[in-house]
Amino acid sequence: MREVIVAGVGVHPFGKHVDKSLKQLGRFALKSALNDAGLTEKDVQAAFFGNAYGGLITGQESVRGQTVFLYSGISGIPVLNVENACASGSSAFREAWISVASGMYDVALALGVEKLYCNNSPKTMAAIATSSDVDIVGGTGWSFPVWYALRAKIYMEAYGATIEDFARVIVKNTQNGLLNPYAQFHKAMTMEEVLNAREICYPLTLYMCSAIGDGAAAAVLCSKEVAEKHANKPFISVAASQLMSANFKNEPGKPTVEGCAGRKASKLAYEQAGVGPEDIDLVEVHDAFAPAELTAYEEVGLCKDGEGARLLKEGKTLITGEIPVNTSGGLASKGHPVAATGLAQISEVVWQLRGQAGPRQIPGRKKRNGPVYGLTHNGGGTLENDSAAMCIHILKRL
Amino acid sequence: MREVIVAGVGVHPFGKHVDKSLKQLGRFALKSALNDAGLTEKDVQAAFFGNAYGGLITGQESVRGQTVFLYSGISGIPVLNVENACASGSSAFREAWISVASGMYDVALALGVEKLYCNNSPKTMAAIATSSDVDIVGGTGWSFPVWYALRAKIYMEAYGATIEDFARVIVKNTQNGLLNPYAQFHKAMTMEEVLNAREICYPLTLYMCSAIGDGAAAAVLCSKEVAEKHANKPFISVAASQLMSANFKNEPGKPTVEGCAGRKASKLAYEQAGVGPEDIDLVEVHDAFAPAELTAYEEVGLCKDGEGARLLKEGKTLITGEIPVNTSGGLASKGHPVAATGLAQISEVVWQLRGQAGPRQIPGRKKRNGPVYGLTHNGGGTLENDSAAMCIHILKRL
Repeated sequence: MREVIVAGVGVHPFGKHVDKSLKQLGRFALKSALNDAGLTEKDVQAAFFGNAYGGLITGQESVRGQTVFLYSGISGIPVLNVENACASGSSAFREAWISVASGMYDVALALGVEKLYCNNSPKTMAAIATSSDVDIVGGTGWSFPVWYALRAKIYMEAYGATIEDFARVIVKNTQNGLLNPYAQFHKAMTMEEVLNAREICYPLTLYMCSAIGDGAAAAVLCSKEVAEKHANKPFISVAASQLMSANFKNEPGKPTVEGCAGRKASKLAYEQAGVGPEDIDLVEVHDAFAPAELTAYEEVGLCKDGEGARLLKEGKTLITGEIPVNTSGGLASKGHPVAATGLAQISEVVWQLRGQAGPRQIPGRKKRNGPVYGLTHNGGGTLENDSAAMCIHILKRL
Repeated sequence: MREVIVAGVGVHPFGKHVDKSLKQLGRFALKSALNDAGLTEKDVQAAFFGNAYGGLITGQESVRGQTVFLYSGISGIPVLNVENACASGSSAFREAWISVASGMYDVALALGVEKLYCNNSPKTMAAIATSSDVDIVGGTGWSFPVWYALRAKIYMEAYGATIEDFARVIVKNTQNGLLNPYAQFHKAMTMEEVLNAREICYPLTLYMCSAIGDGAAAAVLCSKEVAEKHANKPFISVAASQLMSANFKNEPGKPTVEGCAGRKASKLAYEQAGVGPEDIDLVEVHDAFAPAELTAYEEVGLCKDGEGARLLKEGKTLITGEIPVNTSGGLASKGHPVAATGLAQISEVVWQLRGQAGPRQIPGRKKRNGPVYGLTHNGGGTLENDSAAMCIHILKRL
């Protein structure tokens, strides 16, 4: 497997874009990524399209990517539609990486697009609920807030975490989000605002639940030879790419499953990259609900089990901390246009590693001339007490 | 890229299985394929799941593969959900091939499952129509029979093909289907029965349109080293794998588009395999509608443009002919459980190359000890006047 460069990234600002189609959102992001890479639509040799709910919400199923790419001037190449719930974008990125790393193609495009605002909330909520096993939860009123709330309660009981610990995640992320022009929300929330917001499902209040969103994000991956010709330095390479499905073990009393998808994928990713958590300069985690950011710290090895709340309380994961998490503002600020989320995480890491993150730029670990390693943690769907799909990437500044 | 062996294939008989879930259909096919390969669920290192309409028909979207695999005992591995309309199964096969050919994994599984019978025909028809661009055709009454009928009329005008020529495809394929226990229909149709059936859309009569179906098909791909340890000989390898999206050129008066997805993918596949059409012993083509079998002959290079009808009339593509096409009975006999179709084509070719096709076994070209090369042509969806996705595979007996 050869080295692959993430030569370009692009994001359509996340928000409520009821007047824009999947095609328009997608085209914007892919054009931005191609411009960033110094390449054009004609250079793309293979394209991977991530989308989770187009068929259920917009009515476009089955050939979603082709409809977006054809009218963006990308045709007559291999196009694959990829779906892995909230990890659809990262999964598309991973397939694009394999297609270049294997030597099959020199330039591949990964695009994630989602439209969730449709003036029909029940339709959107029903679509999102299909990211679990509908044979089991279909029609029972099951929804993601309930699932995350149950897990949060187990976590509280096991480790003494408090509602304040969860609220602190939102205070941090909405503060970071102020600095991100691609975020859907630009309002820093106080502890009081988060805690006093209406309860969705104990212990989750409204602002602990990420909002839906419309948006798109893309990445252009290429061989080092192509990057040398077209892209600007510094180059960002893919140091690790791992995807893991639910590893069901029935341990209901435990906050996270031993050997769960997130832990397993992280472990494999560190091995693949030849680094450990102590080498990582920044992390983007899947804070679909506030407590999940704390368990994500533990899954990716930033701290031991049960120490997530303390890590944040001590300020270590603040944008000014030693291992900043969700400098982008996370899903709390960006909202969660499902298949776009993973590629937006990757975009944030690329910008940070290049030193292009503007007011939210981090300095990186000591004795480094700027950040070198960034990790993304993008979870999709649920099966039993695990993520249905977990995608971990480690990017490296060369 | 290293050599990849298709060590096992398996099919759940196609038919009307309203009492079986995606999980049950899928599990049957994947167990059959694993048994055939001499492997078990625990040996699978990466899995690719093809399904086109689960979200719209059964309600399971987004993590479809994981729900099938988890309860089949396959968990804690990379799982990717793949969608490319009627080419979803072949697309899953292709990703599995890449994952082994690249050296990332030694054993990968590709599974295609579809349930289309749901006692709600409008729901199924509406789902199938999402395999075109719904922004353009949504709500206009567009459907696949209309699209294929228009193309058939252009073909008739350009080359003088007749309705009898199309009916002959069905006579041949339903005769072959009699010999295939996995086919949905076991009734050989006469020319008169096909021609006198009710008209669906001129020139297509009822029997010229493939039926919907429920079914599943799977393939286990592995390195040669794994195959040597577990699988039976002869080994079947993947000589070529190509996927191509619509290559839109607005030439409405032409029967097939110059450089269309099918032609382009076939040309690349022959180059990749280092063979030509004259080396192929059997072909499975995507006869979703009867005229498409004749244009497929031309796309894959069995004859020149406009000579498809003659090729069949001369008996060359009969099971006893020099280049048998659709020995399985084609979609005409099997019905078309969308994402299962491509992997069922691959299964048929594997059985034929191994000499395991029973009463429908072909001898292969002269001076060969049985067939050596088989090609599958699996088209998915439509955009403008081209296939949205076209997947061509060439398999080779080692």
